[in-house]
Amino acid sequence: MTRAAQMLETYPGDVGFDAKALADAIAACLDCAQTCTACADACLAEDAVADLRSCITHNANCADICATTAAVLSRRTGYDPDVTRAVLEACAAACKACGDECASHAEMHEHCRVCAESCRQLLSRLTDV
Amino acid sequence: MTRAAQMLETYPGDVGFDAKALADAIAACLDCAQTCTACADACLAEDAVADLRSCITHNANCADICATTAAVLSRRTGYDPDVTRAVLEACAAACKACGDECASHAEMHEHCRVCAESCRQLLSRLTDV
Amino acid sequence: MTRAAQMLETYPGDVGFDAKALADAIAACLDCAQTCTACADACLAEDAVADLRSCITHNANCADICATTAAVLSRRTGYDPDVTRAVLEACAAACKACGDECASHAEMHEHCRVCAESCRQLLSRLTDV
Amino acid sequence: MTRAAQMLETYPGDVGFDAKALADAIAACLDCAQTCTACADACLAEDAVADLRSCITHNANCADICATTAAVLSRRTGYDPDVTRAVLEACAAACKACGDECASHAEMHEHCRVCAESCRQLLSRLTDV
Repeated sequence: MTRAAQMLETYPGDVGFDAKALADAIAACLDCAQTCTACADACLAEDAVADLRSCITHNANCADICATTAAVLSRRTGYDPDVTRAVLEACAAACKACGDECASHAEMHEHCRVCAESCRQLLSRLTDV
Repeated sequence: MTRAAQMLETYPGDVGFDAKALADAIAACLDCAQTCTACADACLAEDAVADLRSCITHNANCADICATTAAVLSRRTGYDPDVTRAVLEACAAACKACGDECASHAEMHEHCRVCAESCRQLLSRLTDV
Repeated sequence: MTRAAQMLETYPGDVGFDAKALADAIAACLDCAQTCTACADACLAEDAVADLRSCITHNANCADICATTAAVLSRRTGYDPDVTRAVLEACAAACKACGDECASHAEMHEHCRVCAESCRQLLSRLTDV
Repeated sequence: MTRAAQMLETYPGDVGFDAKALADAIAACLDCAQTCTACADACLAEDAVADLRSCITHNANCADICATTAAVLSRRTGYDPDVTRAVLEACAAACKACGDECASHAEMHEHCRVCAESCRQLLSRLTDV
């Protein structure tokens, strides 16, 4: 069991969602945030950095949005469905755009292949919460 | 001129928006992020903290979302309209919800009054970008 | 293998550290950031929220610092040892303080027990990088 | 009066510092975080992006650390001097390193000149809190 799942189990109230799906989505957000930060950094180190400008921006935006989404999903007290839905939609838009951008470099750069996989895995998790 | 406006002026390309409106929106995001963090902290110090639980969560979510929005709006290279639009919508949802929650405590708590003002000012700026 | 480890493997250069220790430290930072955000949220939902004010602030600070530390550790291009060292020290101070605070509530609140464990595990990982 | 100053005025307790110096430091952190994010983005758009790799990483690290510092300084409830001191030291290290790096490109790139100024102004504010 992940710590995110443990924390949902110890929450003194109703988490208001399937706790397993929620814990998986939170973990996937954190994973994707880190992968995107690392992919931006790896792109920056490539000889072909000038061709990876859009990828670096997509990575940076997606990292920020995923980190915020993980935090919003982790807060169950005073839960607001409208805010949560809008954040999940922003996260899906960022993961879609970043995943597509990274996938277009996946044959050239292994870090982009792993990052595309991370974005797409998070996308599939978001539909479960 | 704010530093956000100075930075947009020195950008080596087209910022793709009215630079003044964009600089004002970025500044309002930062302002709102800080005000929300400070309001959560002030609510936490109140005797009536138990009545301010939802307010604290709205503040924390709105702070995270505004900080992310400021960062996304600050990145002009490889600009993606879909990601930007989704982030602006999440920011508007957070400011609407947090502004309404804070406004409901504004007569009791001056920090909630100032925070509601900050959320609503940002909301009006977001429609300009 | 975690995705943080995969990303370090695909980095086009020398990561400048033991990659396994670095990947473990990054993963522990993300884990601790999430656990702290969740612990602040669980504390906020407790009947005894007024007794948990300091804990909520420690959690919020530790979450922000751990998330920043994960990002700084993930960036290997243009690595700066002075900045990294200072960030690791801030992370250690936050984990020490938050771990001690949470440990003092661990018998009453299971979420504080899990959070103390997460802070202390990260502390032990930080000494490896 | 900035909103950060207004929020400190409405805090239901003693903020434990000179409120004016604290509000100025918080505002300078936010300013520097945004300037650094914008400088990373402007560097990324330059033809000479390959020469600005270190600058982009310094900017990204400094932005994250300044945003975290603004949040930690904004939290007065359950204030912990050890955590605050360590965070201020990390912020000073980041601003020193980023300011020096940006200053070395200031004659070539106006955004780096403005960013160096922002880092150094924050450095001078940090010594007041």
